[in-house]
Amino acid sequence: MTLNRILQAESVAIVGASKVDTKRGFQAIRILLDEKYEGKIYPVNPKEKSIMGLHCFAKISDIEGPVDLALITTPAKTIPAVLEDCGKKGVAGAVIIAGGFGETGEEGRRVEEALMIAARRNQVRLIGPNTSGMMNLCTNLNLVGLQDAPRGDIALVSQSGNMALSLFTEAKLKSNRGFSYYVGVGNELDIRFHEYLEFFKNDPQTRAVLLYVEGMRDGRRFLQEAYKTTLHKPIILLKSGRSSTGQRSAGSHTGALAGMSEVARTAFQRSGIIVVEKSDTLFPVAEALSNLPALKNNKVAILADGGGHATIAADILTDLGVGIPELSQKTQEKLKKILPFTASIRNPVDVAGGTDSDPSLFAECADLILKDPNVGGLLMVGLFGGYGIRFAKSLIWKEEDAAHQLGKLLLKKNKPIIVHSLYSSVKPHALELLRYYGIPVHDSLDVACSCFGALAERGRYLQEYHGKVNFVFNWGAKAKPEGRQIIEQAQAEGRHYLLEPEAKRLFQIHGAPVADDQLATTADEAVKIAKKIGGEVVLKIVSPDILHKSDAKGVRLHLKTAAAVRSAFIDITKCAREYNKDANIRGVLVTPMAEPGIEVIIGTKIDDQFGPVIMFGLGGIMVEVLKDVAFRVLPISPHSASTMMAEIRSAPMLNGIRGSAPYDKGAIRKLLLLCSEIVEAYPEISEMDLNPVIVYETGVHMVDARVILKNNVASENNHAG
Amino acid sequence: MTLNRILQAESVAIVGASKVDTKRGFQAIRILLDEKYEGKIYPVNPKEKSIMGLHCFAKISDIEGPVDLALITTPAKTIPAVLEDCGKKGVAGAVIIAGGFGETGEEGRRVEEALMIAARRNQVRLIGPNTSGMMNLCTNLNLVGLQDAPRGDIALVSQSGNMALSLFTEAKLKSNRGFSYYVGVGNELDIRFHEYLEFFKNDPQTRAVLLYVEGMRDGRRFLQEAYKTTLHKPIILLKSGRSSTGQRSAGSHTGALAGMSEVARTAFQRSGIIVVEKSDTLFPVAEALSNLPALKNNKVAILADGGGHATIAADILTDLGVGIPELSQKTQEKLKKILPFTASIRNPVDVAGGTDSDPSLFAECADLILKDPNVGGLLMVGLFGGYGIRFAKSLIWKEEDAAHQLGKLLLKKNKPIIVHSLYSSVKPHALELLRYYGIPVHDSLDVACSCFGALAERGRYLQEYHGKVNFVFNWGAKAKPEGRQIIEQAQAEGRHYLLEPEAKRLFQIHGAPVADDQLATTADEAVKIAKKIGGEVVLKIVSPDILHKSDAKGVRLHLKTAAAVRSAFIDITKCAREYNKDANIRGVLVTPMAEPGIEVIIGTKIDDQFGPVIMFGLGGIMVEVLKDVAFRVLPISPHSASTMMAEIRSAPMLNGIRGSAPYDKGAIRKLLLLCSEIVEAYPEISEMDLNPVIVYETGVHMVDARVILKNNVASENNHAG
Repeated sequence: MTLNRILQAESVAIVGASKVDTKRGFQAIRILLDEKYEGKIYPVNPKEKSIMGLHCFAKISDIEGPVDLALITTPAKTIPAVLEDCGKKGVAGAVIIAGGFGETGEEGRRVEEALMIAARRNQVRLIGPNTSGMMNLCTNLNLVGLQDAPRGDIALVSQSGNMALSLFTEAKLKSNRGFSYYVGVGNELDIRFHEYLEFFKNDPQTRAVLLYVEGMRDGRRFLQEAYKTTLHKPIILLKSGRSSTGQRSAGSHTGALAGMSEVARTAFQRSGIIVVEKSDTLFPVAEALSNLPALKNNKVAILADGGGHATIAADILTDLGVGIPELSQKTQEKLKKILPFTASIRNPVDVAGGTDSDPSLFAECADLILKDPNVGGLLMVGLFGGYGIRFAKSLIWKEEDAAHQLGKLLLKKNKPIIVHSLYSSVKPHALELLRYYGIPVHDSLDVACSCFGALAERGRYLQEYHGKVNFVFNWGAKAKPEGRQIIEQAQAEGRHYLLEPEAKRLFQIHGAPVADDQLATTADEAVKIAKKIGGEVVLKIVSPDILHKSDAKGVRLHLKTAAAVRSAFIDITKCAREYNKDANIRGVLVTPMAEPGIEVIIGTKIDDQFGPVIMFGLGGIMVEVLKDVAFRVLPISPHSASTMMAEIRSAPMLNGIRGSAPYDKGAIRKLLLLCSEIVEAYPEISEMDLNPVIVYETGVHMVDARVILKNNVASENNHAG
Repeated sequence: MTLNRILQAESVAIVGASKVDTKRGFQAIRILLDEKYEGKIYPVNPKEKSIMGLHCFAKISDIEGPVDLALITTPAKTIPAVLEDCGKKGVAGAVIIAGGFGETGEEGRRVEEALMIAARRNQVRLIGPNTSGMMNLCTNLNLVGLQDAPRGDIALVSQSGNMALSLFTEAKLKSNRGFSYYVGVGNELDIRFHEYLEFFKNDPQTRAVLLYVEGMRDGRRFLQEAYKTTLHKPIILLKSGRSSTGQRSAGSHTGALAGMSEVARTAFQRSGIIVVEKSDTLFPVAEALSNLPALKNNKVAILADGGGHATIAADILTDLGVGIPELSQKTQEKLKKILPFTASIRNPVDVAGGTDSDPSLFAECADLILKDPNVGGLLMVGLFGGYGIRFAKSLIWKEEDAAHQLGKLLLKKNKPIIVHSLYSSVKPHALELLRYYGIPVHDSLDVACSCFGALAERGRYLQEYHGKVNFVFNWGAKAKPEGRQIIEQAQAEGRHYLLEPEAKRLFQIHGAPVADDQLATTADEAVKIAKKIGGEVVLKIVSPDILHKSDAKGVRLHLKTAAAVRSAFIDITKCAREYNKDANIRGVLVTPMAEPGIEVIIGTKIDDQFGPVIMFGLGGIMVEVLKDVAFRVLPISPHSASTMMAEIRSAPMLNGIRGSAPYDKGAIRKLLLLCSEIVEAYPEISEMDLNPVIVYETGVHMVDARVILKNNVASENNHAG
């Protein structure tokens, strides 16, 4: 893999090396020397003979030994020539610091394109441009202007240099964890998020991957790679640029398109990524997940030395969906023996002053609590670490004793422990000990609880993992010959959509229960078909020149008699002529009037970052007014189809309204899967719309089907998984 | 006011004074001496002659001078006798530390009652019991076992001692602000939240009130007092115990009933309180509100030295409803002149390296930005304060210069400024300077943004303040003689609800548009009435023994013919007999079948903490499945009635569905106000239910009305405002 040679480079050329200490080309060399980079450093600058005692080369191709990586600190316009020279030398990759590319607009995008062409021709892979650089903290390959980044086992991939700086600072001040790698993705022009992920998936130094993302260029490949990674290593991700102003801000600094947040969030979660919403919790969650076992049963005990913190923690954990079970009778009895009679022992456990004269009681309580089979993990909240400060100095030793015991408990029980302490930022030794044992300590209840939320989410994911999620299409594999014919016919006629009968037929071919529709070309024929159908019928105009039938007054409902059908036929064709006098009218579709049931809407479209996605919601008000819809990146599994139905707010309506029987969820699920199959079968499809589908106690009725084709199939192929 | 004598006590007796240094009665005296309490200290203990050099009294009544306050550190069972002695001496109040009261269950509640009787008889007001104590930081009256609490102008009223400790610790570590008073409310047995609030409203040392609440005993009086306070001083409140486990936890430590969170939140906000959801932001929001001007136009500029922080801040502020306007052309041009060409100047402003060699540029940018009339406040995010640490020591002076300029800008422009800095916890001098000038500094973007959210909320509240909110009932003032008669008749018959015709008549008397219903006692009569009404009718059973008509199969809809009416009458009465053979059947109500329209539901009930409240939602699925309802504490103003309708998620449906005309919101508003009037007019009413009310383009149709009376009016009178 090329990325190995780049991220684990054993030699690096600094293009634009300088003797001027304010220049990036000076700082880069100084930091590599200061931090004792294990590889070879080659300054490159035609004007210098040597820099900081290192021989300076006029150009990369002058260097004798192999060169894995080039750090290019020179301006944008010089870079194509440098890449030519890299190509000559067989350099694997280049880190491009310069900005002024896609993030600045049209002109910048052209410069970017030229850069990419030069890179391809010379087989040099690019990190950036517009990046703060890259670090391999295992070999001290530090190509960022930052010193003393904390070392550890978290790989950081970030689209913002100052977010990386934030995370380094936080890690140093509030934990004893750190990073294995840092990559500033910049404009993600060449090497994409998923490629970095693939590297870190296989990297033995990395136990978790932390991502700060503003927008991605190939979301689908990323999802697939993430899905392969998360079973073994947690991925933690913050996606910003949700708001339009946030997008404006993101766009102006990385040139990436900030994406549809709802689609993104569910897609990330489906691939097992822990999505963090608040920047405050990003590093703490990574710390917890890289270091603690996942919460296996979604149930936590709270151990507190006062009611307020316990109450707030219980509220937050409940909001996060984490259970706080009552302790077993046995556990309660044991706690009763060691705690004052005023203590609460059900969970939350409140020691009610019991630890005031001996904080090592915390460890005894923790031991009893973690023995309880109901309890998957322990959150300790309050003053621990501050007893020596607040009450009496002698308590410091008892706290340190407790810290040792708690640390060993973590190792022994393999259940996560997190500590909230008011005294966290004072850094008493007992809390440093906890961190040494791998127990995170936070001064924020929100943060401590959010970490348990993430451990619970990871536990659920690992438990529910069933190996069926898939983000890769097998384009065309399940296409039917007649289906292909329908689409090719439409294209041959220069249409970029299917007529309603074609669209319904396409669904029918793939096994959808389509009503017995027939096209009538005369009023007599319409009457005959209506008779055959029996009951009430609907008439709809069919014309390649009329996409939106209602706009052309092209639909008539509830037709009961032959006379009504006849006059509707005449009226519809007249209205169609009035709407567009040149319209090519293929006829009028005669279809049975649907019985009342519950309406659902299913749609598919192509998302900028993730390619084909599917949407589901209940028809009418629920979608139109309440925007109550669920999204999934396609293809979907039966499990995904079910969870889509379950996650909309109005989901209970599918179980029947006011005592009526439940609606046929199986039939909806089938239809969702069928949409997935059709999108995969025909890459020409850009959008589909089943609005509405009427659902009954048994079965569904597809009232309408709209299928839109891509204007240009080739242009969409970067989503082709 | 008694509370003045208590909270500003000039003399305090310590009951249970002790020479043993682990006892509360020792620590209390030591801390008063250490912190140089300005008043007189009287140790009370029959077994000692003197403690720490102070003369010790056998009992309070032995003390010669006046005694304002007693701190009682002795166990629960001794307290009634102590209160007798307090009464003899004319002590104004007592702080009761002991627990073991209502929070422990039934037995504790009895002890509590005895305590309250003793307090009343002796005219001693109580703080607590089960409290950590009380502090007046202006006179160093410190009755809490806590030293070095930071002094300032925020009054803290808390139902949890460790939350108070959290807030003190946070204030000391992360701000230079502090507290004027602290009151541990404990079980709120005697002195209630609203009384403390009234004191702080008038206290010149207090500029803001910070409350941590788990449950309140008299929410209504609190709201009224809060409403009077918030125009002059901000109130910041965190209400915990939302989750059922949180309630279990809260109940076990304060014995208070944790209340309906939705009712509480809207009620608090209506009285101008800033409700904080996360404990992390509680002190920071209080710091901002006590110190900075409110955000006047809901619009903020972001000034950043990197894109990531700017993007995240923009997302959070947008989520909080705070606008991030584009800067004026003029401002942008001026910024362009002083910033590099790669900078973003629209807002967020990203200096793009422009400050790397001179961070005082931040102050210049801030000056230009705050001059922009579109901008109400400034959020600075990123590395400020760390330039000297990160880049070059010489930059420290430039940062300090910038801090002075920013501080003066705050004073000059009177627009709020908040700074986020990665280096906040490192406490560089520049950031300490900012705090000295009153500019809060946070290392959390979430917290910094939440503070702006609160400043924006306060700005909106002050701007929209219209002096019409009212939480006090004028019980019975608007009662009508016939209304009183209806209620008294029901009570005389031993019913605790009104029959449907009575309930509808009650509404009619107060001006509601009630349909032309009539009671039929025979089938013939029913047919006659139906004919008179014309069109489809509904028949409903009327019996004091059948509250739920549907359970007794007592309703028939859509009756079109005389025969149908006749057979429905016979059938209904038969079903009623089968349901309850002894039922007293008054007859059958004949009422016009309502035309289809949109259904709404209006209900009132009595909340444990706030007394009468009203609920509004759209009928059917919206309420039943989606729980999409709005609550208000009664009485409501026309403005409140309108905002109730606007705040449900399904509100857009009232504007018409799929192009239909808007529904008559005026008529709904009238009905809401009428419900408010009726609840206020008849204190006997416990619950009302209008379900459904059908709303049309013009007017409404009240299909059903249920009015439930209280079993015992007297017992509810503590909600009587």
